[in-house]
Amino acid sequence: MITVLRLGHRPARDKRVTTHVGLVARCFGASRMVITTRDDELVSRIQSVNDRFGSNFSVEYQRNWKNYIRSFDGIVVHLTMYGEKLGEVAGRIGHDGDLLVVVGSEKVPKEVYHLATYNVAVGNQPHSEVAALALFLDRYTGGAWEKEELGGKLKIMPSARGKKVETVS
Amino acid sequence: MITVLRLGHRPARDKRVTTHVGLVARCFGASRMVITTRDDELVSRIQSVNDRFGSNFSVEYQRNWKNYIRSFDGIVVHLTMYGEKLGEVAGRIGHDGDLLVVVGSEKVPKEVYHLATYNVAVGNQPHSEVAALALFLDRYTGGAWEKEELGGKLKIMPSARGKKVETVS
Repeated sequence: MITVLRLGHRPARDKRVTTHVGLVARCFGASRMVITTRDDELVSRIQSVNDRFGSNFSVEYQRNWKNYIRSFDGIVVHLTMYGEKLGEVAGRIGHDGDLLVVVGSEKVPKEVYHLATYNVAVGNQPHSEVAALALFLDRYTGGAWEKEELGGKLKIMPSARGKKVETVS
Repeated sequence: MITVLRLGHRPARDKRVTTHVGLVARCFGASRMVITTRDDELVSRIQSVNDRFGSNFSVEYQRNWKNYIRSFDGIVVHLTMYGEKLGEVAGRIGHDGDLLVVVGSEKVPKEVYHLATYNVAVGNQPHSEVAALALFLDRYTGGAWEKEELGGKLKIMPSARGKKVETVS
């Protein structure tokens, strides 16, 4: 099971970016996102996507991220541009047991670098935690998202032009 | 040369997401981002990343996106969850000449689906234009970003713990 811990979410400022983090987590193989600030709106936004497009992806609140990481029973990957290159570290990250992927917003507390099993850089350049998460999960799962069906009421049919959506009853 | 056209940017609402789109474009092999609403702050934010971390990535303003796409001399890829599956279409997209990658925000005008050479879905699920752009460019360039050096004044040295930054003089 893959969990994504989104650090430093501030509902007003990060509304859209954290939604993107959650939807990327859901689409690319994680089962839940943990946030450290309560945000009921965010929870319902993601729930509404589940309702229409499938999956039981959940958003959970944990007040204390430090305890949460410390007590996590599994591998902890922190995505940061300061980390080891994805291409070099990916092969060392085990696939047995649970995985916690930590993504920050602007400033990440120093302790995170030490609590993580691996600090992983998806490029040693500033870009986006949303992109970093997508590429990390893509590599970690061997591109499983390309085949995955999430079993929703609405199913988008791939199309060269326009929009084709089937309603599954 | 790869250009990213970001449709429907609204400076207040999309400030952070469009910045992510720009930084992902810059990091994953594009040379510029075109926006259709003036936003000087966004331009300086990206310029400041160039100044520190290298590259001549530019942000340009074009009022009329329709004319811009129509007069683009090259392949136009529109990233949309309604499109053809990335894994199936990627091999058909040529590598000669220029490429325009179009990413929308919430609602994308219908014409875009018809003006595009290819409508490409990075997963037929709702997630994020930032993630879609990163994964598309990753596949299109064959992961070239993993080796690319952008030649900035600051160079992040991959590190298992903490932050290592070299100042190049």
